[in-house]
Amino acid sequence: MPGAGRAAGVRRLRRQPSEEPPAQEEDQNLLLAAAYVSDAQYNRNVPFETSPRAIRLYYFYNHWTMQVAIYFFICVDLSLALFEEPALFPLPFLATSLAEVLCLTAFFGRLVHFAKVTPQMVFWKDMKNICIMVTIVLTLIDLIIYGSLEAVNVHSVRWSRALRPVFLINFPESRQIRRTFRSIRNTLPDILYVFLLFMFSVLIFSLMALKLFGDRGLKTVEGLPYFTNILDIVFELYVLVTTANSPDVMMPAYNFNWWYCLYFITYTIINTYIFMSVFLAVVYNNYRKHLKNEIRKLAYLKRHKMIEAFNILKVKVGTEFVVTEAQWRRLAKVVAPHISSPHLELLLRISDEGQKGHVDKVSFLRLADLLNIQVVTINIRRHPLEDWMPRVYRSSASLLVQRMVRHRIFVWVYDVIILINAIFIALDERNPFISYAEWLFLSLYIIEILLKLYTYEPRAYFGRRQFWNWFDTLIIIAALVATVANTTIQSARKYNSQQILDIVLILRILRLLRIIVSIQRFRVIVTTLINIGPTILTFGGLVLVVYYVFAIIGMEAFHGKVRFSDPNFTSPDALVCGNPALKDSAFARDRYCKNNFNDLASSFIVLMELTVVNHLPLLAGGFALVTHQAAKLYFIGFHIVVVILIVNIFIAFILEAFFVAYSLEKSEVETAIEKKIQELGVGIQEEEMQDGMLVDNVDAKDSGFSGDDGDNKRKDLKSLYFRIASKKYRTVDALLQQMFESEIAPEEEGPSLDEILNFSPGDLYPKNPNFENSA
Amino acid sequence: MPGAGRAAGVRRLRRQPSEEPPAQEEDQNLLLAAAYVSDAQYNRNVPFETSPRAIRLYYFYNHWTMQVAIYFFICVDLSLALFEEPALFPLPFLATSLAEVLCLTAFFGRLVHFAKVTPQMVFWKDMKNICIMVTIVLTLIDLIIYGSLEAVNVHSVRWSRALRPVFLINFPESRQIRRTFRSIRNTLPDILYVFLLFMFSVLIFSLMALKLFGDRGLKTVEGLPYFTNILDIVFELYVLVTTANSPDVMMPAYNFNWWYCLYFITYTIINTYIFMSVFLAVVYNNYRKHLKNEIRKLAYLKRHKMIEAFNILKVKVGTEFVVTEAQWRRLAKVVAPHISSPHLELLLRISDEGQKGHVDKVSFLRLADLLNIQVVTINIRRHPLEDWMPRVYRSSASLLVQRMVRHRIFVWVYDVIILINAIFIALDERNPFISYAEWLFLSLYIIEILLKLYTYEPRAYFGRRQFWNWFDTLIIIAALVATVANTTIQSARKYNSQQILDIVLILRILRLLRIIVSIQRFRVIVTTLINIGPTILTFGGLVLVVYYVFAIIGMEAFHGKVRFSDPNFTSPDALVCGNPALKDSAFARDRYCKNNFNDLASSFIVLMELTVVNHLPLLAGGFALVTHQAAKLYFIGFHIVVVILIVNIFIAFILEAFFVAYSLEKSEVETAIEKKIQELGVGIQEEEMQDGMLVDNVDAKDSGFSGDDGDNKRKDLKSLYFRIASKKYRTVDALLQQMFESEIAPEEEGPSLDEILNFSPGDLYPKNPNFENSA
Repeated sequence: MPGAGRAAGVRRLRRQPSEEPPAQEEDQNLLLAAAYVSDAQYNRNVPFETSPRAIRLYYFYNHWTMQVAIYFFICVDLSLALFEEPALFPLPFLATSLAEVLCLTAFFGRLVHFAKVTPQMVFWKDMKNICIMVTIVLTLIDLIIYGSLEAVNVHSVRWSRALRPVFLINFPESRQIRRTFRSIRNTLPDILYVFLLFMFSVLIFSLMALKLFGDRGLKTVEGLPYFTNILDIVFELYVLVTTANSPDVMMPAYNFNWWYCLYFITYTIINTYIFMSVFLAVVYNNYRKHLKNEIRKLAYLKRHKMIEAFNILKVKVGTEFVVTEAQWRRLAKVVAPHISSPHLELLLRISDEGQKGHVDKVSFLRLADLLNIQVVTINIRRHPLEDWMPRVYRSSASLLVQRMVRHRIFVWVYDVIILINAIFIALDERNPFISYAEWLFLSLYIIEILLKLYTYEPRAYFGRRQFWNWFDTLIIIAALVATVANTTIQSARKYNSQQILDIVLILRILRLLRIIVSIQRFRVIVTTLINIGPTILTFGGLVLVVYYVFAIIGMEAFHGKVRFSDPNFTSPDALVCGNPALKDSAFARDRYCKNNFNDLASSFIVLMELTVVNHLPLLAGGFALVTHQAAKLYFIGFHIVVVILIVNIFIAFILEAFFVAYSLEKSEVETAIEKKIQELGVGIQEEEMQDGMLVDNVDAKDSGFSGDDGDNKRKDLKSLYFRIASKKYRTVDALLQQMFESEIAPEEEGPSLDEILNFSPGDLYPKNPNFENSA
Repeated sequence: MPGAGRAAGVRRLRRQPSEEPPAQEEDQNLLLAAAYVSDAQYNRNVPFETSPRAIRLYYFYNHWTMQVAIYFFICVDLSLALFEEPALFPLPFLATSLAEVLCLTAFFGRLVHFAKVTPQMVFWKDMKNICIMVTIVLTLIDLIIYGSLEAVNVHSVRWSRALRPVFLINFPESRQIRRTFRSIRNTLPDILYVFLLFMFSVLIFSLMALKLFGDRGLKTVEGLPYFTNILDIVFELYVLVTTANSPDVMMPAYNFNWWYCLYFITYTIINTYIFMSVFLAVVYNNYRKHLKNEIRKLAYLKRHKMIEAFNILKVKVGTEFVVTEAQWRRLAKVVAPHISSPHLELLLRISDEGQKGHVDKVSFLRLADLLNIQVVTINIRRHPLEDWMPRVYRSSASLLVQRMVRHRIFVWVYDVIILINAIFIALDERNPFISYAEWLFLSLYIIEILLKLYTYEPRAYFGRRQFWNWFDTLIIIAALVATVANTTIQSARKYNSQQILDIVLILRILRLLRIIVSIQRFRVIVTTLINIGPTILTFGGLVLVVYYVFAIIGMEAFHGKVRFSDPNFTSPDALVCGNPALKDSAFARDRYCKNNFNDLASSFIVLMELTVVNHLPLLAGGFALVTHQAAKLYFIGFHIVVVILIVNIFIAFILEAFFVAYSLEKSEVETAIEKKIQELGVGIQEEEMQDGMLVDNVDAKDSGFSGDDGDNKRKDLKSLYFRIASKKYRTVDALLQQMFESEIAPEEEGPSLDEILNFSPGDLYPKNPNFENSA
């Protein structure tokens, strides 16, 4: 079967130096093709040199150890701020600066490695690389200046620390974070005009407020003059947009005359409701546009790489170019070394449908997708107990137990038990009756798991993608550990570790989450949320970058101005947060002293509070008192960047994810590959597996097999089943890419590489929007 | 030309009693057809009887005086709450109850009128009518009980007042508000599961908080125990979702150990950011789905009505059914009596393209759309000054002035003047130099207007749809009036009317809005916002209904508990808002006494503050102190209804409106009618009219006419131009309906009436969502 005329009609596209022996040349070609396929599989779009040395370097560059190493150095570099003054854990300057130099060396090494892999022209035209180099140089200069000034005891500002996130953003591996940044940058021009109009509106209202209230001699609750200074008014009204000082800012005027509340209501409707929605609309619209553009770019780039790979490996058979089966196998083994052989067999069966001994172009182009499909091989077996003691397991008592466990009522009974447990947790646990009940509940849960394992086949129950079963079991084990630990600690009567005790407490409560498992609608929502997870981590990266920059600036500007010393606020110094300027301020009165910029962790927590927005004026007011009124600009700047831009992008992202999930719920997007697997009769629908009945279902098929009437195809694959990783567990990006790909004709070559890289979102808009799209 | 064989081949579809003379029968048919066309034009979907008497009654029912009358009575009924105890303007019970009975009679009369028009079956199956009748009966019962108890001096609750908004919602005229309510009702099942999961998450976190913090003996800033009672914790954590008590609620735990902030951060991310976004996603998704379904329903209903009308009037000419031109004219005159005769001529020209003397079916079906197009007839004339003194107006000095005014720099100079004016307004006006400058600016603005009127033709400049010119001129006139009034009042030295002075102050500042007129991008944003205007009013109606119900409940529960007496808060009673329970509370300390439920206006203002959410816990806490802890449920209920449902629908609506606007900006949706008008060469593109150059442009065409080389069609229409009301000024609904209609084939009859009325949003989803739709 394999390779009808493999060596014979082979025609190369890439010319290699002729002195190389043919076998080695072929290996080189295979490596090159495998590099293209692997890039297509992981959506990498780094151009690389095709010389043998460059390809080997490229493999090394993409190796997971290198990626882990670079992320490790980025983490070390970013976390240095924890050890530098103002430090959470102080280390001498020499130690941190040495660590920083080490990180910079690693970054530089990675860059040099990259330069060796990629064509010179491309390397120097890429802004990312320039950025990294400039940052390395600037950091070194800053280190030298700061070090030498420190040596003569002059303190200066370590400004280059705010540049550190550049490394996180600019390495080619952080494509997702960079994409979000690009999305923000592209949104800026559109949002700028709305922002200007919004600021104009705030200014007009400020002028009105000055004229209306300035001369009335009104006082705020603190006894300060109300609305007399235009800059104060602009600040207060900006803050009113965030709703953080409503209705305080209105009360003096409203108390004076109820007529004035109309002014504030108008302001709120226009600026808080309408303008803030418009910001969301603009950000969302741009996010959508650019998301689609990027997806299109990725899809075409993938197609492009696969065509390159095909052109390298193709041989002529009859009238068409194909890839021989042997070549195909070798390629697959290079691209995915850990693939199991039944899995490989399945992929080959799909690619070479007619079993002609070679793979044609259209099928070859699908290889990257095939490799991306997470196929779970399920070996259907009987329950081990059935093998060991069939008579007992099949006795009528045993069958009754199994039927009981599979019954709906079994689930409901345990739901009720969980609810009762929740009530017991809320009650006072010093009551001995309640602490005994704790053990009762725990044993009930363990009985449940054991019964389930008795009824369902254990290896299927703990299959690799049986998320909810794992979840359920882990929670019960955690609860068991927690209860045991709690009892041990309580009987030992020494609460020596606060944190461990707290974790134990939380684990005991988390078991209530089991109720989610048994309500189908809850499970759907949670599954969607879990799918969003990976991209939320991207947002985590983005937020980390912005927080880091603002935290470094904040620490330089505000550190040591506010001190938290005494948890009970008894000393007079503690009452004013160690700063007399805060005497009688709301900041000190509400005991906000711990909200300070004295180290990185505290700064992050303050920034988190600012993201939530409420009490922004209180925090801004406090720090303005201890430094200067201009400090308020820092807080407004943070609000504009984080709340108006990033939080809106976050909301846009969640909206989009839910819409994709909703439109899929109602319809079917199946790729050709999934259809093939179904056609071959070796697939199991995720839906069948999802349900409580899942293993049941497999069992039924199994008995069909034991009767040996399974069809031939199934026997070929050694009675393995392949489960296609569910659509439900795919990310929004992957789903959209799949949708787009299903719309490109399988033969289409797509535009040229240059065109692909220059796609703009404007091209995407249909000239005549139709009813379905537009609303 | 008219009516080739009008009476001859006429075949009736509706059979009338045979004893009626033919002419009268024809009139009846015309009236019936006109009723259908008129319903299609205004998107009414009330079925009516086709007997002559019912049709006449139906005309009377739809007459604008009747509609105004019913809205008047609804307003009176709703505003009765201002005069009933607790009243803003107290009136005796007898007066308000008489007024209420009068209103109820009017509502009942309207209902009886409707019953006579519509078929019996339809009337009794319609929930709206049943609702109104039940509400009338309940209100009467409540009035009688309350009145008789009052007579024996027993005070009871006027509970039926909360039902009053039923009249506003349920009359067929309030279709928009009802649609929004329907949208909310349809969203409920979907949102319910998310809400339950969300509440479940809040409960889990509450239990954790109880276990983590309950036994620590922590105190809040007020010195109260911190997180010891599960109900308090649930309330505090629910409020934390609204961000209203962040970071206060965290500070005691955070001050105790920084480790605990992780708990609050996790909580905020999950419940505030993720769940609130999911709520928005669910609401938006449903809003979209139902909007599209309603639009589709409306479009098919319109088509249906037009086909009915055609079937009544059709006569057979040759092989096809048509409507004769004479019939068409009579019909148009009945449907739109105020239509001008050139306008009618234009419509006929469009409908009867080949001038065959009759209108075919496809053209006839467009009649409702044709009548809906707001056509502005523009009579192009020369500048009056050019007629009166051509030599002077065309002198080189005059031409120079005109060129100058038309130049960009002229606009920029005035922008700079406005900015300088803004600075002057911000300065202290008691300085005499500044008050003189005021007059200088004003005269500069007046000179600007005069120059523009000199350059452009005044009647064109103040055309009916020249929004921005009107805007500009009105602002300047208002500023002039304001400045004069201000000077008069100041010289008279008696500030007798506070309100007038305030309005004058605001008018003087509003002139700065003129800067919007001169920046194109600002104008685009503002135009979109103005388009949204009418639908925002629908939301106003919705919010009014919800506020009214909550205000009535709030007034019953809380009135008189908190009193505002002394604006300067000097008496000890004023310091505790007249209620000793509020002693030392944050409510009294922040001087919130005027935030009370003592009358309808105050209640609305409190509800507005609650909508903005911030300080919700302070308000809820205050009212819980003066009544009972259960009062907090009222505030949480309000938050769920208004913020989670209504505000999200509002945001969904603005998002949708902006997306439609954006996708139109990039493309062209032109209906056949607009194309026809352009083809006939009698249309002027809105774009040409919009710009500063507009009248200029028309002038140019005018001179072409004066040379008498205009083509025939133009001459036919007496050198009138028709301006199609711009796409920019259409509402989202109208735009979507147009998009949908452009996708139905002109010949398509559409589904049957029953099918149309039973459309469900589920049918809309495409089986295979494509890339464009889904993201």
